[in-house]
Amino acid sequence: MDVLVVGANGQVGKLLVNMLRDSQEHTVKARVRKEEQAEAFRKMEVEVAVACLEQSVEDIAQAARGCNAIVFTAGSGRSTGYDKTLLIYLDGAVKTIEAAEKVGIKRFIMVSAIQAHRRENWHEKMLPYYAAKYYADKMLEQTELTYTIIRPGGLLSEPGTGMITAASDIRSGKIPREDVARTIIQCLTEENTYYQSFDLVSGDVPIEKALKVL
Amino acid sequence: MDVLVVGANGQVGKLLVNMLRDSQEHTVKARVRKEEQAEAFRKMEVEVAVACLEQSVEDIAQAARGCNAIVFTAGSGRSTGYDKTLLIYLDGAVKTIEAAEKVGIKRFIMVSAIQAHRRENWHEKMLPYYAAKYYADKMLEQTELTYTIIRPGGLLSEPGTGMITAASDIRSGKIPREDVARTIIQCLTEENTYYQSFDLVSGDVPIEKALKVL
Repeated sequence: MDVLVVGANGQVGKLLVNMLRDSQEHTVKARVRKEEQAEAFRKMEVEVAVACLEQSVEDIAQAARGCNAIVFTAGSGRSTGYDKTLLIYLDGAVKTIEAAEKVGIKRFIMVSAIQAHRRENWHEKMLPYYAAKYYADKMLEQTELTYTIIRPGGLLSEPGTGMITAASDIRSGKIPREDVARTIIQCLTEENTYYQSFDLVSGDVPIEKALKVL
Repeated sequence: MDVLVVGANGQVGKLLVNMLRDSQEHTVKARVRKEEQAEAFRKMEVEVAVACLEQSVEDIAQAARGCNAIVFTAGSGRSTGYDKTLLIYLDGAVKTIEAAEKVGIKRFIMVSAIQAHRRENWHEKMLPYYAAKYYADKMLEQTELTYTIIRPGGLLSEPGTGMITAASDIRSGKIPREDVARTIIQCLTEENTYYQSFDLVSGDVPIEKALKVL
């Protein structure tokens, strides 16, 4: 597939772009917020689109043209306020969804957060973040897009193992970002993940197999 | 109808509670956030329920029992941060919607904000507020409830005139809170407003008539 990675400059995003660039199956376009972030990708010979999620749906759609899948893994960064939590994680995500619809991109993978679908399990110290993810996921589920919502546990920087547990309801856990990126790529064409939402943590089943028995 | 006013301590809320208390057609229950806010309503011989919108759906549902209509006009107050914008205006509203569904209350009136349905017209300095209202309204429209979404223009404290303009798309305008409260009450039983969303400003048509020709 021709994949637009929204949030390419993030930690999961960077891993994902690298893997997609090296894959035989897919091509990748990195969407970043600022021109300064674009150069590193160009040096890696990765196509880049610069568009901020606070811009219009039309601008975001422009960046998505030519792709047939979108992975949304953008964040508002650590140093921004809750206004950006709302405007990036929720409204930015939904504008990206609307951009997909506008351009005719059907495949949409959302990177959410473990237990975001269960308000009673939202992390006490991150309620606004979870609320934003919850509603973004809800909005996606109500579209006609071929969505997959991946809700990873606590993200680790250590190397991946390729072994996961994926299920509709996992209370807690952690997972290396590398395994999240691998899972996203596997989901792109794994039809068993279409219209599915699931929690994702490290486990003892190979990614490919785990996604087939979701 | 037996009306629960969520946000009874707000400026529109207080006017609404007073009008409902004095009406022949309706009874009112005032929902407030804190016990300290309850006393003033009890002195007015208005039934009160104390429940915070950051509590569980079950707690909010408990406060709604015995009513057959809900008006949501709650805010997070002027002095709170954008975290509360998200948690009260959006998640608090949706929890109230879920509480209505839980208790079997069908009639739901949401007080939103003018042009909240058009992202391109959101007030530049109030983007998080508009985003929260937008998604709360979206979530309500997707329920099975008999909803009405009222999007008033800039709120004035001056006395109402009883004359309004109500339409699906009014770019800007103002309206006295008193006329907003009157419009809400008229909507409660005006079937022409069921499943409708509209902007509301001061105008030259009597409220009752304006709502019949929406």
